[in-house]
Amino acid sequence: VPKGSHKLMKQFDQETLLQPLGNGRYGGQLYPSFNIGSNPNGGYLMALGASALRQLHPNHPDPLSITAHYLRPGVGDAPCEVATSLLRSGKTVSTARATLLQEGKERIEILAAFGDLANTTDVPLHIDAPSIPSPEECIGRSGEAQGVSLGILDRLEIRLNPDEARPGALGKGQISGWVRFRDGRPPDAMAALLFSDALPPAIFGLLGLVGWVPTIELTVHVRRKPAPGWIQAQFKTHDMADSRMIEDGLLWDSQGSLIAQSRQLALLLKKP
Amino acid sequence: VPKGSHKLMKQFDQETLLQPLGNGRYGGQLYPSFNIGSNPNGGYLMALGASALRQLHPNHPDPLSITAHYLRPGVGDAPCEVATSLLRSGKTVSTARATLLQEGKERIEILAAFGDLANTTDVPLHIDAPSIPSPEECIGRSGEAQGVSLGILDRLEIRLNPDEARPGALGKGQISGWVRFRDGRPPDAMAALLFSDALPPAIFGLLGLVGWVPTIELTVHVRRKPAPGWIQAQFKTHDMADSRMIEDGLLWDSQGSLIAQSRQLALLLKKP
Repeated sequence: VPKGSHKLMKQFDQETLLQPLGNGRYGGQLYPSFNIGSNPNGGYLMALGASALRQLHPNHPDPLSITAHYLRPGVGDAPCEVATSLLRSGKTVSTARATLLQEGKERIEILAAFGDLANTTDVPLHIDAPSIPSPEECIGRSGEAQGVSLGILDRLEIRLNPDEARPGALGKGQISGWVRFRDGRPPDAMAALLFSDALPPAIFGLLGLVGWVPTIELTVHVRRKPAPGWIQAQFKTHDMADSRMIEDGLLWDSQGSLIAQSRQLALLLKKP
Repeated sequence: VPKGSHKLMKQFDQETLLQPLGNGRYGGQLYPSFNIGSNPNGGYLMALGASALRQLHPNHPDPLSITAHYLRPGVGDAPCEVATSLLRSGKTVSTARATLLQEGKERIEILAAFGDLANTTDVPLHIDAPSIPSPEECIGRSGEAQGVSLGILDRLEIRLNPDEARPGALGKGQISGWVRFRDGRPPDAMAALLFSDALPPAIFGLLGLVGWVPTIELTVHVRRKPAPGWIQAQFKTHDMADSRMIEDGLLWDSQGSLIAQSRQLALLLKKP
């Protein structure tokens, strides 16, 4: 990246920028811009790992399947390093792992398959976007409502379906709405990783504001490149056993095309 | 394992048995018992990796979240080695990765979180088992019908819902039925990994017998220990773009309790 070009880049690109250090290692800075409370958002950490992995093969820039396990919280205003290891590179898929480190400690571990979504044309089976109120009719996500500071709202505009955004509104573990970058950056495959963990936990719609919901593991399958505009999002939790729950996510672009599916295993830690 | 005790073990336990070799490495044999055609089943390969990972922490024997990426087909009648690396061990979750090698080549790569499912009692959200014909009313899966030898049917009894088992029967990408071990071994968390990849691809119900469907990546979340008896299974493919498709799976035990969710990204390779 030539000097001075940072000023031309959009915020998310600047804040996931990594420089090769040799031997599969990449270095950069983890910004507090995507914090939830005092912790960096899990989707942002995944995007940082992906920012290194997409450099491993020139023809495989897109995460087809990416799984992150969250070992320790990230540090939202400190340098980071991503150590990658290319496991196999085929014609259409490269498989690799990555470890995001800060202050000498492993923060997340990633296993992923990368490829090229450029020419997705044949779509024989498709999950349709549900009809929800338009972005203008939805409620802006606000940090104050949850008593935690949401730095991520400086970067993302998030609108929530008013039918679900109130605690217990529909009596089901579902939340939907819209998300886009505040600085006008168009969505892409990398953004899909961030957006897959950007809405409030779906369980809040059922139980209200119940506490901290740390992610154990998040897997995102990016299905195609999105068209410009708002991304429509839907997250559901229909399976909770003990304190462990599954949250399933779907993202569609402004044309109604499915661009990603996600699933995470999270813990529900009750308020003390 | 004391000498001679093999004879008391059930087949699946014998055929996923690994001995510690030191430095996180485990050695054993990959049997052809779970072959689909000439390739070992992907769920069996995952179970072999899990057989090593569950030995890393005495209190964390159960795969809570396990992701396998398939790099090369396994060799169904050759020694195997599993190299593990424990990434972090907490009170309730241990995170680790594993590489299954044969003939010096990496076959699958695994990233997983293990814990203890022994005391799953509080289940506030639950996905109910759909009503399908009983095992006696279902159709036994047969290898001949697909023109490939299904060694896996020597180990597993698989009964398919007759409403879906004929090509195009319901015009949707769904297949359901029942599965159990032929030798009476009760199901457990390890069996859930095998069973998550044991039915014919869900897409066969929509398109008929369309060719080879290699798995790029499979993730299984085991949700609770199953009760003895038949396992009810359901797999759906509602999302296919170009030749890449997502298959979602659900497994329930004989009491109707959800025991696992799975998702895989697979390629649909058309018949030549």
